[in-house]
Amino acid sequence: MLEKSIRAFMPYPFAPVKSAPVGTLAGLTFAVKDLFDVAGYPTGGGNPHILAMSGIRRNNSPVVQQLLDNGAQFIGKTHTNEMAFSMSGHNYHYGTPVNGAAPERIPGGSSSGSASAVSNQCCDFALGTDTGGSVRTPASYCGLFGIRPTHGRISLDGCQPLAESMDTCGWFARDATVFAAVGDVLLPEDTVDSASPSLAIHPALFSRLPASSQQCLLPFIDAISSTWGGVHQISAELPDVDSAYLAFRVIQGRESWQAQGETIEREGLVLGPDVAARFAWGKQVTDSQVSEAITVREQVTQWWNEQLGNRILIMPTVPDVAPLLTTSDSEIEHIRRISHDLLSIAVLTRRPQVTIPLATLQGAPLGLSLMGPCGSDRQLIRLAGEIYSLARTGR
Amino acid sequence: MLEKSIRAFMPYPFAPVKSAPVGTLAGLTFAVKDLFDVAGYPTGGGNPHILAMSGIRRNNSPVVQQLLDNGAQFIGKTHTNEMAFSMSGHNYHYGTPVNGAAPERIPGGSSSGSASAVSNQCCDFALGTDTGGSVRTPASYCGLFGIRPTHGRISLDGCQPLAESMDTCGWFARDATVFAAVGDVLLPEDTVDSASPSLAIHPALFSRLPASSQQCLLPFIDAISSTWGGVHQISAELPDVDSAYLAFRVIQGRESWQAQGETIEREGLVLGPDVAARFAWGKQVTDSQVSEAITVREQVTQWWNEQLGNRILIMPTVPDVAPLLTTSDSEIEHIRRISHDLLSIAVLTRRPQVTIPLATLQGAPLGLSLMGPCGSDRQLIRLAGEIYSLARTGR
Repeated sequence: MLEKSIRAFMPYPFAPVKSAPVGTLAGLTFAVKDLFDVAGYPTGGGNPHILAMSGIRRNNSPVVQQLLDNGAQFIGKTHTNEMAFSMSGHNYHYGTPVNGAAPERIPGGSSSGSASAVSNQCCDFALGTDTGGSVRTPASYCGLFGIRPTHGRISLDGCQPLAESMDTCGWFARDATVFAAVGDVLLPEDTVDSASPSLAIHPALFSRLPASSQQCLLPFIDAISSTWGGVHQISAELPDVDSAYLAFRVIQGRESWQAQGETIEREGLVLGPDVAARFAWGKQVTDSQVSEAITVREQVTQWWNEQLGNRILIMPTVPDVAPLLTTSDSEIEHIRRISHDLLSIAVLTRRPQVTIPLATLQGAPLGLSLMGPCGSDRQLIRLAGEIYSLARTGR
Repeated sequence: MLEKSIRAFMPYPFAPVKSAPVGTLAGLTFAVKDLFDVAGYPTGGGNPHILAMSGIRRNNSPVVQQLLDNGAQFIGKTHTNEMAFSMSGHNYHYGTPVNGAAPERIPGGSSSGSASAVSNQCCDFALGTDTGGSVRTPASYCGLFGIRPTHGRISLDGCQPLAESMDTCGWFARDATVFAAVGDVLLPEDTVDSASPSLAIHPALFSRLPASSQQCLLPFIDAISSTWGGVHQISAELPDVDSAYLAFRVIQGRESWQAQGETIEREGLVLGPDVAARFAWGKQVTDSQVSEAITVREQVTQWWNEQLGNRILIMPTVPDVAPLLTTSDSEIEHIRRISHDLLSIAVLTRRPQVTIPLATLQGAPLGLSLMGPCGSDRQLIRLAGEIYSLARTGR
């Protein structure tokens, strides 16, 4: 069951974890990103020093407990990028989990082990976290459904924080029905009317993609438009992407240092060079940078609220398929940068986003996303299943 | 410096450890079996659950501190057989460190990582522990000098216990001078007169070996005899080996359960099957078995005291070279059993024993041992160096 060779899991057996004998998730197996507490296990957060300080946790995170109470069977904890602060999937200490849909490509991260576990069919679904794209990116790269829910809508108690105003609990599944069943357990009822979704796109979010990605994704938009009675085109110019990215980075940097800086300095944590550099940058962030970033966040949020209202935005999840494992560090960093132009929209606006494993390009998966208004999470999941079904069966 | 591919070390970087700029060990590097506390590191004892409960230790074990204070440079913590309770070198959770002298053979254990690190030239010496043979066996298998000192002569503070009345702190080195320099730091002065050692053998300890091992080792006895003016032959019949082995096993079983049983049960530790079985056996040991075992231990000790006095016994370390990695579990268990007939003599009598990397058989190393009276540790180390030099240079 636990495939050690895919490097998705903490490779050690700890105590078995009990789940309810019946429930809506009975018969389904799941894995948990090693940021969430699971009783009988340590919580390592992708760093061996944190692991050694962790102790064995006595309580399950509320989200884990809900899954167990509904009959899902826990099979193991999965590797995360260190401190959840990277999107490559490569952990300096533990290596790179295998992308089950494209083994020659990176899995993406930071929820790399969870995406690897599900894409390699080790379990039916897996918990991850999405602060800046850490579920959406590996879901697109590994050919999975993945959700970043409305910020604050699912408890993060018993979960190691990265950046409080951005952290969310998401999950991965191969199957739309499983994906939805987990949402039925973890999500409260929607707070927006979901009778007949109104859809929108912003062409500029597509026109910046590589031509191959555009050619791959746009036919799905046409099909969706035909079935759902049209897609509204937003024509207003997008908020400046560099300002939005900087706002994202400043807030994440400040909050991540607030969350982990004291531990990093007190313990003299040995971090991978990329993660160490990000925390060091976060330490330098000034109060005036933060207040400026918060202003930009409010402007971006207001802009999208005005443009979208309760419409659901269809958008690319990331610009392209997963990079090859041989891709250089500087190229990975560039991909991270341009990915954030797409990924940071939901982060800054706190909107939920679901990525659907629709397309294939160069033999690798590429997701298409739905971003809805806050509190429309269940609607997004339902619509994602319908779109997936349409694409697969024409119905 | 740290060769990950040999699986000797905990593979994660923790904080660097400072040593004195000068001292008798300056310029020498060392590794530490992961039973001893090193400040800035966890202490895992070969089990990932223990590792996660460990926390980061704030203080060095006294032996580690002595080495650092004398200028030795710490390079890493090494894998141990789980809870130090096995001699195969195979750890259920972490795999098998590579035997640097015979990569197709097991390294032996439980100080497997330390023997691997030194035999693969990752460092100059390494700390291990020897409860029932855990330094002497891997030293013989990996072609190294190794010592089990007089019981109680070197502090085991800050070291995870296995069986209190048998645990000792030993070390490995490739080079006789390095081996002795470590002893000069860790050992108090001898308590027995060491002017002119008187040597002895018991032929029955050799006659039970495989013929190939006898043919390999006996010429060294002849050479030693010529140089040191004869070797006394003990002719009295050996104490019953099965009774002695049982006494060893009962005392070790009782003490190991006393040391670790509460943790094993409270935490529900997941242990490798062989180690779990040994602890389970130890739990069943009765008080009357223990008192009988203690009587046997006293008889064995008295017998050897009478036969040897202050003489130094030359004896095989283990019956044969290291088994091949492909050897079956049942054969490994048989080898363990017959090895203990030799190894348990020093354990029961609390005498120090040094193994010398003298012989080669089938391309693999085979050690020859010196066992002296309690408190003759430095004399044994000196004599081991002289015998090694005699064998190598004829002088």
